[in-house]
Amino acid sequence: MKLLEDRILKDGVVREGNILKVDSFINHQIDVLFIRELAKEFHRLYRDEEITKILTIEASGIGIACIVAEEFRVPVVFAKKTKTVNIANDVYTTKVESFTHKNVYDIIVSKDFLHKDDKILIIDDFLAKGSALKGLIELIRFAGAQIVGAGIVIEKAYQEGGGLIRSMGIRVESLAKISSMSDGVIHFES
Amino acid sequence: MKLLEDRILKDGVVREGNILKVDSFINHQIDVLFIRELAKEFHRLYRDEEITKILTIEASGIGIACIVAEEFRVPVVFAKKTKTVNIANDVYTTKVESFTHKNVYDIIVSKDFLHKDDKILIIDDFLAKGSALKGLIELIRFAGAQIVGAGIVIEKAYQEGGGLIRSMGIRVESLAKISSMSDGVIHFES
Repeated sequence: MKLLEDRILKDGVVREGNILKVDSFINHQIDVLFIRELAKEFHRLYRDEEITKILTIEASGIGIACIVAEEFRVPVVFAKKTKTVNIANDVYTTKVESFTHKNVYDIIVSKDFLHKDDKILIIDDFLAKGSALKGLIELIRFAGAQIVGAGIVIEKAYQEGGGLIRSMGIRVESLAKISSMSDGVIHFES
Repeated sequence: MKLLEDRILKDGVVREGNILKVDSFINHQIDVLFIRELAKEFHRLYRDEEITKILTIEASGIGIACIVAEEFRVPVVFAKKTKTVNIANDVYTTKVESFTHKNVYDIIVSKDFLHKDDKILIIDDFLAKGSALKGLIELIRFAGAQIVGAGIVIEKAYQEGGGLIRSMGIRVESLAKISSMSDGVIHFES
């Protein structure tokens, strides 16, 4: 999506260790009118599916997911990160490895909000190694719900996550796919 | 706001320890079309102020803040909760006490996203003891920006937070004010 690629080139900052900071419009400050344009694109891509729910993960996915959900006129559910699962009977839970923060954490979703008859679109801001996305897919499978696909704002296509999830037969639509930024310059897949 | 009070009575659950669960439409699952109606009400209340930015705190404030921000056509900034402030030069930071989780945590906002000429509306889902709200007010004051007021979805008016913040001369608009729920039944301030 050219609008997004242009914005990443304009406002994204590449930091040491292959980190792309998009703090000024996605991750810390959120340009909601811009996100609305991304949401319309996700809706265009998935509008023929009968999506009943958007699933995301706290914290930075929530804002985007809410704006996308409004396009589909369905609710958002966000998985919570936690260190102690103390309500295990009421929730679906799995483990996610964070490469940014170098730790493993549990994510949980209440069983009340994922059902067998749900058709779920996963929304997240980043896809790199695919650890969070794999976790969300597991939660949906525990619930016996249908995964329609994933809508990702920025995919680091030079990392393995996208290939991994697609090889599971799951549709992944990424609005910007970065093919490299190792030289400090951002290149997109054409 | 009657729409909200009715929804709280219908879907809110009172748990032991004076806890109101609104997980099914605000806090875990988010009914975005419903939140849009709340956002319009916040806009009606604050539309004569020249708000430049919405400030909230992760995680459950983010979705609501994004939908509200779209009404005002301004960006959202969300304060991040953290245990280790390792980029102290670039951020404003203060401490917040959590009574739910019985701990103290740091919140941070990048100095890039709060400016002296900003007129800021704080949005959050709950106001009880006012600890998070006080923290957000401090961050805004560190930046030298103007606090237009706070927009709260649910105020526990029997706790001290609302009185405390208003006694600081800050406008607080709460869409539902709970006067008591000690008997397991939710009563609103009339």
